[in-house]
Formats: sequence, C-alpha cells, structure tokens
Amino acid sequence: MAALETFANTHPGRDYTITHTCPEFTALCPKTGQPDFATIRITYVPDKLCVELKSLKLYLFAYRDRGIFYEHVTNVILDDLVAAVKPRSMTVEGEFNVRGGIGSVVRATYEKAGRRR
Amino acid sequence: MAALETFANTHPGRDYTITHTCPEFTALCPKTGQPDFATIRITYVPDKLCVELKSLKLYLFAYRDRGIFYEHVTNVILDDLVAAVKPRSMTVEGEFNVRGGIGSVVRATYEKAGRRR
Amino acid sequence: MAALETFANTHPGRDYTITHTCPEFTALCPKTGQPDFATIRITYVPDKLCVELKSLKLYLFAYRDRGIFYEHVTNVILDDLVAAVKPRSMTVEGEFNVRGGIGSVVRATYEKAGRRR
Amino acid sequence: MAALETFANTHPGRDYTITHTCPEFTALCPKTGQPDFATIRITYVPDKLCVELKSLKLYLFAYRDRGIFYEHVTNVILDDLVAAVKPRSMTVEGEFNVRGGIGSVVRATYEKAGRRR
Amino acid sequence: MAALETFANTHPGRDYTITHTCPEFTALCPKTGQPDFATIRITYVPDKLCVELKSLKLYLFAYRDRGIFYEHVTNVILDDLVAAVKPRSMTVEGEFNVRGGIGSVVRATYEKAGRRR
Amino acid sequence: MAALETFANTHPGRDYTITHTCPEFTALCPKTGQPDFATIRITYVPDKLCVELKSLKLYLFAYRDRGIFYEHVTNVILDDLVAAVKPRSMTVEGEFNVRGGIGSVVRATYEKAGRRR
Amino acid sequence: MAALETFANTHPGRDYTITHTCPEFTALCPKTGQPDFATIRITYVPDKLCVELKSLKLYLFAYRDRGIFYEHVTNVILDDLVAAVKPRSMTVEGEFNVRGGIGSVVRATYEKAGRRR
Amino acid sequence: MAALETFANTHPGRDYTITHTCPEFTALCPKTGQPDFATIRITYVPDKLCVELKSLKLYLFAYRDRGIFYEHVTNVILDDLVAAVKPRSMTVEGEFNVRGGIGSVVRATYEKAGRRR
Amino acid sequence: MAALETFANTHPGRDYTITHTCPEFTALCPKTGQPDFATIRITYVPDKLCVELKSLKLYLFAYRDRGIFYEHVTNVILDDLVAAVKPRSMTVEGEFNVRGGIGSVVRATYEKAGRRR
Amino acid sequence: MAALETFANTHPGRDYTITHTCPEFTALCPKTGQPDFATIRITYVPDKLCVELKSLKLYLFAYRDRGIFYEHVTNVILDDLVAAVKPRSMTVEGEFNVRGGIGSVVRATYEKAGRRR
Repeated sequence: MAALETFANTHPGRDYTITHTCPEFTALCPKTGQPDFATIRITYVPDKLCVELKSLKLYLFAYRDRGIFYEHVTNVILDDLVAAVKPRSMTVEGEFNVRGGIGSVVRATYEKAGRRR
Repeated sequence: MAALETFANTHPGRDYTITHTCPEFTALCPKTGQPDFATIRITYVPDKLCVELKSLKLYLFAYRDRGIFYEHVTNVILDDLVAAVKPRSMTVEGEFNVRGGIGSVVRATYEKAGRRR
Repeated sequence: MAALETFANTHPGRDYTITHTCPEFTALCPKTGQPDFATIRITYVPDKLCVELKSLKLYLFAYRDRGIFYEHVTNVILDDLVAAVKPRSMTVEGEFNVRGGIGSVVRATYEKAGRRR
Repeated sequence: MAALETFANTHPGRDYTITHTCPEFTALCPKTGQPDFATIRITYVPDKLCVELKSLKLYLFAYRDRGIFYEHVTNVILDDLVAAVKPRSMTVEGEFNVRGGIGSVVRATYEKAGRRR
Repeated sequence: MAALETFANTHPGRDYTITHTCPEFTALCPKTGQPDFATIRITYVPDKLCVELKSLKLYLFAYRDRGIFYEHVTNVILDDLVAAVKPRSMTVEGEFNVRGGIGSVVRATYEKAGRRR
Repeated sequence: MAALETFANTHPGRDYTITHTCPEFTALCPKTGQPDFATIRITYVPDKLCVELKSLKLYLFAYRDRGIFYEHVTNVILDDLVAAVKPRSMTVEGEFNVRGGIGSVVRATYEKAGRRR
Repeated sequence: MAALETFANTHPGRDYTITHTCPEFTALCPKTGQPDFATIRITYVPDKLCVELKSLKLYLFAYRDRGIFYEHVTNVILDDLVAAVKPRSMTVEGEFNVRGGIGSVVRATYEKAGRRR
Repeated sequence: MAALETFANTHPGRDYTITHTCPEFTALCPKTGQPDFATIRITYVPDKLCVELKSLKLYLFAYRDRGIFYEHVTNVILDDLVAAVKPRSMTVEGEFNVRGGIGSVVRATYEKAGRRR
Repeated sequence: MAALETFANTHPGRDYTITHTCPEFTALCPKTGQPDFATIRITYVPDKLCVELKSLKLYLFAYRDRGIFYEHVTNVILDDLVAAVKPRSMTVEGEFNVRGGIGSVVRATYEKAGRRR
Repeated sequence: MAALETFANTHPGRDYTITHTCPEFTALCPKTGQPDFATIRITYVPDKLCVELKSLKLYLFAYRDRGIFYEHVTNVILDDLVAAVKPRSMTVEGEFNVRGGIGSVVRATYEKAGRRR
C-alpha cells in the first residue's frame, strides 16, 4: 500500500476536527471481481500530527485493484489512519453504491484510551 | 421464507454500525390484496456475525407475495434479523408510500440485554 | 366527527414508533371563512392499540368544513387521538401554508403519566 | 360559481404573459365523494383584460364542494377564464396528487382564432 | 391481463394532454427471475376516449408476476393503451432502477396516421 | 410601532411550541440607508397568551422604514414579543441576505425565570 | 425615480446576452397598501450601451414606497430600461411571492424594430 | 476489450429511444496515471439490434486500467457502440469529475446516413 | 497572460461538443478594487484543436489580480479562446456572484463564418 | 493584515449567537502557489463587542495573496477573531473545495475560561 504521510499539527493545544471526503473510492468485490464504488468520509481530532492530503489520496487510490468487503475495508482504513496519525479520535464512514437493489453504509470510530466523549 | 445467511465479523473488538437501505421493498395489503411499496432501512452494531447482502436481498424479496400490515412487517423483519445475526443492537425502519393521501413510517429497535445506550 | 378506529398492536412488548403524514389537510379560517391548508404529522409509540389508517384519513377529512384556529386544531387532534389510541407517547405537528406572508408550525406532545422520556 | 372579475390591461400594445399558480386547489371525486387535491397553473397573453387575483382565488375555492373529474375540471376552468378574460391565448394545467399510486397532469390550451403560434 | 377501461372525453373539440405517472411499477427479469422496478409515465392527447384511472392501475399491477425485458414492456404498454384508448397521440416512458451499476430509460411514441406533429 | 395583539391559549395545561416564519422582512441599514432583507423565525411555548398572526405581520412590516442593525433588531423583536406574549420560552432568529459577500444569522432566546430547559 | 445610468458596450460587433437578477424587489399593493415582494430578472442583448449595475439597484429600490400592480410594474420597468439602454432586445420577468394562496409571474419582451428573432 | 453483445429489437417498426446511464465509469489519465471518474450516458434509436445490458457494463468496466483522454474516450465509446448495434442514431455523453478546479462534459452524436433529424 | 495550449482533435470528422466549467474564477472590480467571483462555462465544437485543460486553468487563474468588468471579461475570454483553438463554434458564460443584491450572467457566442446553426 | 473592527454589543445581558458566512474566501496553496477556495463560517456568542461586518470582509479578503494550509488558516482566523472580539465562545469552520478528488472541512472552537457548555 501507498504510505500515509503526516505533518506537524500547528495548534495541538486545541481540540479541533478535520474532515476529508473522497467521493471517488473504488475497490473490487472479492466474490465476483466486479468493481464497487463508495464515498469515504474521514473525521478526526488531531493530536501531534495531521494526515497529508496527497498521500491520503494515493493511499485510497491503492485499493483500486484489491478485492475487499465493505465492512472490512472501512475498518482497515480506520486502523491504518490511526496507526499513522495517532489522533485523539477518528471516524471513518464508507457509503457504498447500490448493489442488488441495496445501498450500504459502514461507520467505525476510534477513541484514544482515557478520553471521554 | 428465504434463509438469512451470515459471515464472521472481522472487527468484533470494536462497536461500529452497518446500514443497509433497500428502496425496492413490496408486499401485499392483507385487506385489499393490492401491492404496498416501501423503503426498508436496517442499521445494526454487529457482534460476532454480519448479515450477507445477497441473502438479505432474497429475504426481503420473499415478501412480494405475502399479505402483511405495515406495523407488523417492520417488527417481523427486526425479529428475523435479530435471530439470525444476534447483533449488539439493531433498528429497522419501514417508510411506506402514500396510500389514501397518507404516508407512513414504522421504526423498531432491539437492544441486547445488559447493554446501555 | 368521523370515529377513529383502532386495531391490536402485535408487538406490545417493544417500544417502537409509527409516523403518519397527511399533506392534504384543509380546514376553514374561523375569522374569514377562507380555507387553510396544512400538512399534519402524527408520531406515536403504541401501547395496546394502533390507529387504523382509513379511519384516520376520514377523521382528518372531516375538518374540511369546520372553522378552527391553527393552535387549537393541532391540540384537538392530539386530544382525540390520545383518547382513541391510548399511546405511550404521541406528537402531532401541523405545518400551515403561508398566510399574509407568514408560515406557521404548531407542535404538541403527550407523554403517558409515569413514563420518563 | 363565484364571478371572475377583470381589469383593463395597461399595455395592450405588447404581447406578454401572466402566470398564476394556485397550489391549494381541492374538489371532490364524483365517484367516491373523497377530496382530490391539485396545483392549478394558468398562463395567458392578455388582450384588453386581465383577471383580477382575488376573484380568481374565490372562483378556484368554489370547487371545494363540487364533484368533478380531473380531465373535466381542467377544461372547464379554461372555458370559464377564456369567456371572462378573452385572452389572445391561455393554458390551464392541473397537477393532481397521487391516487392509487398514480399522479396525473391535465393540460389544455386555447388559441384565439386567426393567431399563429 | 386486466382489462383497460375507458370513459367518454368531454372536450373532443380541443387537443389537450393527459399525463399519468406510476412510480410503483414492478415486473420480473426474464433471465434471472429477480424483480425489476420502474416508474411508468403515460402522456396522450385523447380523441373520443380517456383511460379510466383504476383500470390503468390494475393493468400496470398485472405485470407484477410476468418476466419481460425493459425495451419490450414499454412498447407493449404503448400497444395495449393505443388499442384501448385510440388516442390522437401517446408516449410511454419507462424509467428503470439501477441494475449492475446502470440505470435505463425507454421511451416510445405513437402518432395517429395523418396527424402532423 | 404597530401593537402586537394576543388571544387566550386554549391549552395552557400543555407545553407545546408555535413557530411563525416571515421570509419577507425588510429594514434599512442605519449606515448607508440601503434596504436589508431577512427571514425572521419566531418559536415559542405559550403560557396564557398566543400572538395574533395579523398583528405580528403588521408589527414586522413596521420596520420597513427604520434604520437598525442586524444584531439589534433581532434582540428588539424578542424583547417586544416577550413583553406582549409573556411566553414560557421564546427564540427569535433573523437570517439576513448576503451583503459584501457575507450572509449573517442572529439568534436570541428568552427563558422564563425558574424554568429549566 | 432614480436615474438609470449606462456605459459603452465594449463588444458591439457581437450579439450577446446580459442577465441581472434582483431577488430583493419590493413595492406596495395599490389596493391595500401592504408590501409585495418579487424577484426581478432582466435579460438583454446590448447595442451601444450597457446598464450600470449600481444605478439599476437604486432604480429598483425606488419602487419600495410606490403602490403599483404586478402586471403594470413589470411593463414599466421594461419601458424605462428600453428608453435608457436602447437594447437590441430585452425581457423583464417579475416573479411575485404568494398572495391569497396564489403566486404570479409576469414576463414582457421588447424586440427592436426590424430585428428577427 | 470486452465484446458488446446484442439482441433483436422486438419493435423495429417504431422509432423509439433507449437511454443507459452509468455513473460508475473510471479510467486512467494518460499523462499522470491518476484515475479519472465520469458518468457515461448513452441514448439511441435501435434499428434491428439492442445492446445487451450486462455486456455493456463489462465493456465500460474494461476501461478501468486504460490511459485515455476525455475527448477521445467519449468518441471511441460511440464508435464501438455504433459498430456493434448499428442504430438509427446514437449520442454518448461523458460527464467527467472536477480536476484542477474544472469539470468537463464531452458529447458526441452519430446519425445514420440518409436520416433527417 | 498565461498561454492557452492546444492538442490535436482525434475526431475532426464529427461535430461534437466539449464543455469546461470552472466554479473558481475570481477577478477584481476595476472601480472598487474589491474581488468579484464567478463560475465560467465554456462550450465549443472543436475543429482541428482542443484546449488543453491545465493551460485553461492557468489562463483563468491569471485574472486573479486584474481589474475588469463582467461584460468585458466574458467577451475577452471568448476572444482569446477563439484565437487559440479556432473552433467551429464556442459559447462562454460567466455567472457572477451577487453584488448589491443583484446577481449577473453574461453569455457570448462565436460562430465560424459560413456555418449555419 | 487588515484590522478587525468592533462595536458595542447592545444586549450583553443575554447569551445569543451571531453567524457570518463568507462563501468567497480564497488563499494560495503554500506548496504549489495555486489558489484554494473555501466557505468560511464564523459563529459566536458576543460578550461586550461584536465584529463589524465590513472590516471582517476586508480581513478575510486579505488572505487572497497569502500561502497558508487549510488546518492552519482556520485556526489563525479563530485566534485573530478571539483576540479582537473577546467573545464568550466562537467556532470557525472552513469548507475547502475539492483538490485531488478530496474535499475538506476544518472546524475549531474557542470557549472562554470558566464557561461551561
């Protein structure tokens, strides 16, 4: 996978939120090999690092040729971003296009240990 | 009825939500025999299992020739899905098209015993 | 007035909500005799009874020739439905079309005694 | 029926169009006695007269207690307005709310003899 | 199939258009047996007859258990309505829900012989 | 200023909300004399009185020739309405059209002493 | 009335269109003295002159205290702009807010003599 | 490339239109190798053949790994479909997502020789 | 100004249209020095050349620090693009944000000599 | 930078909110020198001062020629406004246009010490 790059948060003294929305996410269905399309929304409160936008784009585009299920890919993106950015909290939401007459949304959240919501 | 199939949740260590929306639900009115149309929305927090999408589609399509009331069908779908998926929590919402100048929405929720909201 | 009919709730063991929306409500202004138009939204948690849809339609249509103020009619519909359905809770919202350059919404809620929200 | 009143067109030397839209039209179904709801749109090129707005409102409200079919009422409104206003051309469009799962639009046009479109 | 009924056009001296829109059309895919969903729009200029709305509803609902392709069903509905109503002109448009990531619209028109558009 | 009139609340035993929305508010900028335009939204829980709609319209229209700032006028409307209607609670929101590339919203709330939200 | 100012068209060798839309037009009803609100849209093909935007704003704002009917004001704005700008063609459209449950649009066009559309 | 399949048109005696819309088209930019995303709309009047939907889907998905410019791909899809389906007329429209702050639409049409529009 | 670059049209044998939409255009008002914002839409039928997208972006961004009127800039963009691309026809439309309560659109078209529309 | 000016809050005895929305914010990307575009939304509860609208406009326009990152500029605007207006609380939200297929929103909040939400 493409590496996620980061840069230093200039305002670590303040809890604030950053949201990145990518409506052009595509991967392959591991069962049929057919393409799936989704909008990925990432919202986080940075601690010492922010995710660099171009590396995020390349990271998401790297799923283009991988076979992976909806529920799995949303959680894996969250795991990878948490490992790279070490945020105070983060939510990843995948909104998947209609397949077989059914549209799906998967939403997973990470909260740093010891932090109350 | 068609059987609901499941697969193993890959991230049981995390509470996260999955939403499936089927805008193509149809059943029959038990009084008049005329077709009713609805959008069914299912949102749940999986425990050890996730519902398999194709079996969900076939399960919902199996109502096509059954006569059943709005309030009843929404609760029965919730009962069947809870029995099959054993989720931590689940909500089923049926949004029924206008009949006699009135549109209707029925919304039912299951919460696993011992879980606080 | 037309009588509100009810049928037995098949899932009294569960708190769930039913919403009926009628965008075709009309009554007369008691001051000018001119017609008023509104959308009426009814949301409730049933106890032992549900309101029957056709009788609800006829009940709402019976206001067609009555002169009654916005604030009053919304509360009276709530009173009548609570008396007939004996719900665990119920909200009635009337959204009235613009008159004299001003649109109005009236919203009233009933909560069964001893029930905490 | 309420009488349609007119006033003198101040710019008869110019062909121009006037559109009045009434989203609050209601009549009764002649078969079932149940209310129908529609939006009525009237567009015309005046000759010597314009229709007075308040009399138009009262004329349309007078259908409230009459039983009349969609196709008929649209043509009758056109006939009555043409007789009262003697326009160079006029179109009446009735957009009727969904009944039995089907919405309907009826659209009729009058063109003064000897006028080319 | 259910029979299409008609009633006499009260304004045959005037060319005017009637549009009926049914967003609740469903049939079966002849290949897979799975349900298809569509919105059917019918627009016509009546001659001596208009189509009766309830019989139109029943006619369209009768496709519920038939296997038929998009392109075929749209043309067959046009053929049947032209045979029953003998209109001056008629257009039938079927807007089919997304299947395999592709949505489809089929649109067919009949013009009575000797009529110029 | 035009006087705000009231009428008796028929259901003082119940807390319910009334919302009036006027999209046609206009006043003058005290600096430039140029007109400002806004939508005014008033939401309140009545106690013994409701505001009469026609007097509210005339009250709001009376600002047409007054020079007054956004922040000030929203608070003054709230003060005047609280004085006239003596509500259990009330919110006034002014949504002002774009000036100099910037749109503005001011929102002020009154809560009767001794009432908890 | 405020004077309409103009400036020289830099591209008189080309027919092109300019549209100005003012959603903040208000005048008084000559019958009741109550305010009317409208959106005014002006589209024209300039000849040697273009209308200056600030003077257009002041011209339109000068109707604020005048009593004038919908049909009349739209034609008068067209007459005044044609006299000031001498365009190759011009259309003025006034879209008036709902009064008595009816919204209105008036649309008038000027075409320079000897110009074919 | 995947082969486009066809089936016999059941109503060749009538000119009618078929539209297929694929919002999930993706290819690669030949300069940068980065993915492009587009909605492809195909509208045609069939002669003896119709394009089979599943083969169309596979044909469009086959661009996923090809580097090709906007203007070129739209024309090539039109060329391939005309060769396979031999329609009376056909239009292909590609609506490409924003790149560098600019969104683009390319639209190309084929008309069978000797056919007047 | 930044130079407009071109590339060879691969399908010169066919009249087809290309539309580029830039919602991020900004220039300065020559009177006040304040920024203006617009959406620029360019539609053309290429002859032997197409405009290269990145050079178009840089060309449009080069207006950022120039003072220029709405009517003028739209025509100048058309002149520059026609000179560079030598299209069969081209339309440039500038949709300028509200200033002083008035929004404006300027639309200019070039048609190659000897070409009929 | 342009100085932020203030005026005295006329209703300091009441907590109320003011929101200013500027959809015409533009700055430069510090990496590429290319322009970025955003909508800036500022919401605050004033204490003794309100921000003057014209100075706010000039302050925001002063970023036009500065190179600054999304996350940084949103926090800096908040810092500057808090220093000038000394509010009880304030939120600044920057909604940045799509770059590389990804749109971004940054949202930062200041709460005066000793104030509970």
